[in-house]
Amino acid sequence: KQHYELNEEAENEHLQELALILEKTYYNVDVHPAESLDWFNVLVAQIIQQFRSEAWHRDNILHSLNDFIGRKSPDLPEYLDTIKITELDTGDDFPIFSNCRIQYSPNSGNKKLEAKIDIDLNDHLTLGVETKLLLNYPKPGIAALPINLVVSIVRFQACLTVSLTNAEEFASTSNGSSSENGMEGNSGYFLMFSFSPEYRMEFEIKSLIGSRSKLENIPKIGSVIEYQIKKWFVERCVEPRFQFVRLPSMWPRSKNTREEKPTEL
Amino acid sequence: KQHYELNEEAENEHLQELALILEKTYYNVDVHPAESLDWFNVLVAQIIQQFRSEAWHRDNILHSLNDFIGRKSPDLPEYLDTIKITELDTGDDFPIFSNCRIQYSPNSGNKKLEAKIDIDLNDHLTLGVETKLLLNYPKPGIAALPINLVVSIVRFQACLTVSLTNAEEFASTSNGSSSENGMEGNSGYFLMFSFSPEYRMEFEIKSLIGSRSKLENIPKIGSVIEYQIKKWFVERCVEPRFQFVRLPSMWPRSKNTREEKPTEL
Repeated sequence: KQHYELNEEAENEHLQELALILEKTYYNVDVHPAESLDWFNVLVAQIIQQFRSEAWHRDNILHSLNDFIGRKSPDLPEYLDTIKITELDTGDDFPIFSNCRIQYSPNSGNKKLEAKIDIDLNDHLTLGVETKLLLNYPKPGIAALPINLVVSIVRFQACLTVSLTNAEEFASTSNGSSSENGMEGNSGYFLMFSFSPEYRMEFEIKSLIGSRSKLENIPKIGSVIEYQIKKWFVERCVEPRFQFVRLPSMWPRSKNTREEKPTEL
Repeated sequence: KQHYELNEEAENEHLQELALILEKTYYNVDVHPAESLDWFNVLVAQIIQQFRSEAWHRDNILHSLNDFIGRKSPDLPEYLDTIKITELDTGDDFPIFSNCRIQYSPNSGNKKLEAKIDIDLNDHLTLGVETKLLLNYPKPGIAALPINLVVSIVRFQACLTVSLTNAEEFASTSNGSSSENGMEGNSGYFLMFSFSPEYRMEFEIKSLIGSRSKLENIPKIGSVIEYQIKKWFVERCVEPRFQFVRLPSMWPRSKNTREEKPTEL
């Protein structure tokens, strides 16, 4: 009984704490209108644009992708041969974040506040690859069909959940040196994000199979690719899974200080 | 002449790129109204509240501070003895960010977009210390006066400039392994932030000098403290100085994946 009361007391205290936070930040979760994030869209677009320019300018994105595919090849289904990139489009549009609102986390018993943000991307992110489809039936290696695939993500629409925490409960146990520089907030701040299961991810998938007698756009090929990409996504950042990323310290430090007009460049 | 034209061409291209970014994110810097950041205030407040709870709960904040002061003691003026903490208040209010708007960076020749955000903090962040004032005139060590100081920051108001970049131009040359995992965005995303020089930082400083015949609230003491704190701040993050912080990769990864209901805790 005593223990139960203490727990209840701690819980009430925590609920009051959150209520106070909302009061002191002038946020009423029941009536506060959703907020726009147009400024954020511009900053994100700028960084994506820089990424695109540099990726193409240095011509290193193909190498990076090939390396990446090489590292991941053990994970590929056994009916696929090695993969070569034939086409690449990093898109020319930008994600639009909007409609940001604070809510109590549904499964937290009102013990946690989180932001929900809509995200919408209308673009044409394309990856074209060349490989061979290895037919292992009726006996292994009976045929190797050349296959050309062009996969585009043309639409991504989702609701993103974001929160900040310094709770270590989800932190990986491997990098455990948490309080080396206590004063400077290095004990760990984390960004948690995930997408709600009702996300929408649309593809355009073109396939070409065979060298002489060609088969175009076999539906089965498209759905295998789509399944693999969505599986990758769902396993990492669709609720109840989420990404838990350690944020850098924002404490102002000499070593992070720069000047607007650098004398050396 | 040729070289000049090429530069001009590249410059025009860059200006067009930024114009396109603004068009595609539906942001007209001339007429777009400032946006609120109430959601952000709640998330930041929640993390500050967690920090405060843990700091006091574990009773480790005093140790951290003492360690910090110990490490910094060589930087103290020579007329101060070692410092002992007597009072500490981590405050109970939260910073309010507001009025966020995008502009071309004033000194960039319209080549960069940044966000300006107002920040206001009304709180009572207090640090009380005990030390000795060492009088070295007319001869060294002629007197050591006990001194009690209680310094509070009661108001901080400023305009924050924030931008995201993956430009390496300001990156420290020491950690130069930039393209180890090209595909996963590890090549470096940075948050740049600084405060405009018209910031307001108000203090309440109480001082007590001497053991028997006590001198209270000597103005000179207050201004020395205030000067040191503002100097620390200005040297790190007031324009033209800024903080340049490497952001972690947001690319979804297995090792950062967690589940909402952890089986181990």
